[in-house]
Amino acid sequence: MHDVAAAAGVSRGTVNRVLNGGYVSADARTAIEAAIAMVGYVPNTAARNLARRRSQAIGFIALEDPALLLEDPNIGAIMIGANEILSLADQQMVSLVIDSDRDTQRVSRYLSGGFVDGAIIVSARSHDPITRLIAQIGLPACFVGHPPDLDRGIPYVGIDNTGSARAITARLLATGRRRIGMIAAALDRDSGADRLTGFREALGSHFDPALVAEIPLYDYAYGVKGMRALLDREPLIDGVFAASDAVAAGALESLREAGRRVPEDVGIVGFDDSSWALRTQPPLSTVHQPARDVGRNAAELVLLQLRGKDPVPESILLDSPVVWRTSA
Amino acid sequence: MHDVAAAAGVSRGTVNRVLNGGYVSADARTAIEAAIAMVGYVPNTAARNLARRRSQAIGFIALEDPALLLEDPNIGAIMIGANEILSLADQQMVSLVIDSDRDTQRVSRYLSGGFVDGAIIVSARSHDPITRLIAQIGLPACFVGHPPDLDRGIPYVGIDNTGSARAITARLLATGRRRIGMIAAALDRDSGADRLTGFREALGSHFDPALVAEIPLYDYAYGVKGMRALLDREPLIDGVFAASDAVAAGALESLREAGRRVPEDVGIVGFDDSSWALRTQPPLSTVHQPARDVGRNAAELVLLQLRGKDPVPESILLDSPVVWRTSA
Repeated sequence: MHDVAAAAGVSRGTVNRVLNGGYVSADARTAIEAAIAMVGYVPNTAARNLARRRSQAIGFIALEDPALLLEDPNIGAIMIGANEILSLADQQMVSLVIDSDRDTQRVSRYLSGGFVDGAIIVSARSHDPITRLIAQIGLPACFVGHPPDLDRGIPYVGIDNTGSARAITARLLATGRRRIGMIAAALDRDSGADRLTGFREALGSHFDPALVAEIPLYDYAYGVKGMRALLDREPLIDGVFAASDAVAAGALESLREAGRRVPEDVGIVGFDDSSWALRTQPPLSTVHQPARDVGRNAAELVLLQLRGKDPVPESILLDSPVVWRTSA
Repeated sequence: MHDVAAAAGVSRGTVNRVLNGGYVSADARTAIEAAIAMVGYVPNTAARNLARRRSQAIGFIALEDPALLLEDPNIGAIMIGANEILSLADQQMVSLVIDSDRDTQRVSRYLSGGFVDGAIIVSARSHDPITRLIAQIGLPACFVGHPPDLDRGIPYVGIDNTGSARAITARLLATGRRRIGMIAAALDRDSGADRLTGFREALGSHFDPALVAEIPLYDYAYGVKGMRALLDREPLIDGVFAASDAVAAGALESLREAGRRVPEDVGIVGFDDSSWALRTQPPLSTVHQPARDVGRNAAELVLLQLRGKDPVPESILLDSPVVWRTSA
């Protein structure tokens, strides 16, 4: 700015007025604009925002194994939905990858260091240091999904995983299946644990814990393994609830290997209604997750806190209806 | 800091010395540390870094339709590779979504506003405003892939798309196929254009432009359409080079619909060696893209510019060998 003022032959105050839209004479404005072009001045927005104590940026963090991020079309859709709303509010969404303890520490410093005004956290778990930090420093935030023990006044956006799991299991039961198993994934997340609960509730006295294969992640390769385990334990299995569409796609692979026809011999249902659901043979009956809308709502809840005027809802649950196709 | 100094009964200068590791008496240090805990002071790192004129953050931007980001396992792998190296250098990678003109403008301000020290740009195109801006403001940067007309001293990391496309087409020819077509995607990117060039070079005088179906994106759904177009134009087609694995997976779907067996009736090859390649039936013969390594190298090239000591190579080309499976 010093260089601009010198080149234009005006004071720094006059340059400042031009930059911030205040009054200056037409001559001074022309001289300053020419000087700006000449010296290649670019306003340091980071400095300006700092003076105003805001960064105009919102962090987006998915606390998932990054390898899984690549496979999970939901997280991308949540991110795009959130970006859509933040963009309209002129907020820069910055998404931060966490792949190591070193990342966790650095991201913690970033979140508490004035670089963002808020954060959206996907798949938070109760013992996660990022989750604790956000509660501690009081950063305006919103969870997508919620840690099981969350009780710290941070709102969340999600779906009724239990209810939807119950609904799709009931629908599978209604097709006349007798021996129904589940490939249950990610039981350390609310989504994974709740889907298992819904499955158990729908089966009631027919629930058989031996017919639950547990896998760590919502992942195709684990779906292949989970289905093999179920076939080993119960060759007469005729119905399967896979905890996600990717898991269901893996299960279909194992059923094909084992020579079982779908849906004739085994009916299978998934969860997510992601791009996987339409690509499998046959296309999956599943639960529709409104992932983009989840992202949009999470962004709204962060903006609401930043505006600091209206009361912030504790949580928003969006509809997640069953979509019935031909895999069961 | 004012509050900390008041609570500890010392000057702000003394607090500053404790925070920055200078000498203070043991008593003063104890008092200040207690005061810090009491008032809940968190150092504003954004302010400190600003004073030092660095943000310790590197932007990561993929100039692709965000809907495609969700489908493309390569971009995620590039991102994870880049994060790995940046993390070791204690740099925060911030990834920025561009989904609208509004996003382009805001991201441009972010990049030029002091929020990042450098940037990694994936899939830059020549007319992209972000590409122009980066060249203009001289931000330390690295491209993954390169805009066709790039001549601005910005290094890039990539693979030899032309050479690999030539190699896999030659291999497909060697299986005895007579009527080979290509589903060519993203011809406005260097990767897409180069793969078509390699295909044409390998076929030489056998190249028939009627057997090239053009689609806009590396995408499953377009792969389905591209293959239908080729089958319409040449029912005797017996070999297909799909510009990516996702496109090949879509093409397999069309071939199944049309009752063609793979590889017996039609041999098909892809490009990427992404998770798609192992999930199709049969698994895809393809070109291996070392996506994580591409990300790692791109991060190294940005760090090299930030250190400002050693010369920066103009480009790094990584090996991308043919991986032969059973789809051809």
